[in-house]
Amino acid sequence: MPEIAVLLYDRVTALDAVGPYEVLQRLPGARLRWVAPEPGAIGTDEGKLRLMAGERLEDVDRPDIVVVPGGFGTDALLDDARVLGWLRRVHETSRWTTSVCTGSLLLGAAGILKGLRATCHWAQLERLREYGALPTSERVVFDGKVVTAAGVSAGIDMGLALAAREGGDELAQAIQLGIEYDPQPPFDAGSPRKAPAALVEALRKRLARA
Amino acid sequence: MPEIAVLLYDRVTALDAVGPYEVLQRLPGARLRWVAPEPGAIGTDEGKLRLMAGERLEDVDRPDIVVVPGGFGTDALLDDARVLGWLRRVHETSRWTTSVCTGSLLLGAAGILKGLRATCHWAQLERLREYGALPTSERVVFDGKVVTAAGVSAGIDMGLALAAREGGDELAQAIQLGIEYDPQPPFDAGSPRKAPAALVEALRKRLARA
Repeated sequence: MPEIAVLLYDRVTALDAVGPYEVLQRLPGARLRWVAPEPGAIGTDEGKLRLMAGERLEDVDRPDIVVVPGGFGTDALLDDARVLGWLRRVHETSRWTTSVCTGSLLLGAAGILKGLRATCHWAQLERLREYGALPTSERVVFDGKVVTAAGVSAGIDMGLALAAREGGDELAQAIQLGIEYDPQPPFDAGSPRKAPAALVEALRKRLARA
Repeated sequence: MPEIAVLLYDRVTALDAVGPYEVLQRLPGARLRWVAPEPGAIGTDEGKLRLMAGERLEDVDRPDIVVVPGGFGTDALLDDARVLGWLRRVHETSRWTTSVCTGSLLLGAAGILKGLRATCHWAQLERLREYGALPTSERVVFDGKVVTAAGVSAGIDMGLALAAREGGDELAQAIQLGIEYDPQPPFDAGSPRKAPAALVEALRKRLARA
């Protein structure tokens, strides 16, 4: 019966949050808590979708699993004492503290990644060094109870890996089958090692400006 | 500048909607319209997440791209004249009419799939015959301007295929790289052809009861 807290904040990326949610909500007895600095409808990236956060940070203090999605809004929170304090607090008692994409920068800013292997969106990976983490170019990185996933869509893979740790391989496979996760992207351009170099550089520049 | 309408309704599956959204919102100038019978916070599957629908069906009449996600709530709408009427209306002028998972049953009930190849969640695929469609066990199926995707997570692959038709392969690849969609599921159990047979049968039974 895991209690799962997902942090939402202004300009979060929807799939970062919804990917792991869609997997982890299927754990038997899963209870979801959508937490934000101010509860209500939270606008994602450019405000084209709003997700409901039902609870205030201070009202959620002992989740079993913490999920910190990334998004264009992470930078604005890197010195937010209230959000970082909440992350430190829930991390004390969590079974798993997790992030997707630039959510790991928030874990880093909270001091949670010191000396740990961790990942992030490929274009922001090196920034993890600022927080004493060891940037690791893998899709899902476990280091003790801290689990970080690469950019946006990697949260689905992380969710499945976590489901296996929580409930066993067979449960995780049943969830994978339930969400028919048999990915067949029409292109093989999902990582900087595979995409055309010109595309990688163009996107890196665009993201640096954003 | 495509206008993209995503249908939301009680007990929709979040990833069915958010997967295509996360890709298509990145099309240059994309305008998103989240449409529901009654606007407001829409509860997904078991109510563990709510997505905001900003607009009423009657207020959205000429979207370029229509996205119909599936979910446990689709069955309740299969004879809903208002929803089916809206689907027929927007399909008249859409550039693409699309679905994910059991969303294709709604397209079928609206009469849109007659004689067309289409797909659905694997466990519900044969039901498409009731609507005169040709059930097609592929991840993303294009038939004219109607595009259907398999279960839940297949909407991401559909989004990328559609992005390529809308803006070219290079744009779709840039989006794929942006959301770091380089899937690495920890198991290979995402389709009934790959998962252990006992798992497939158990899930088929459970979904039939649901």
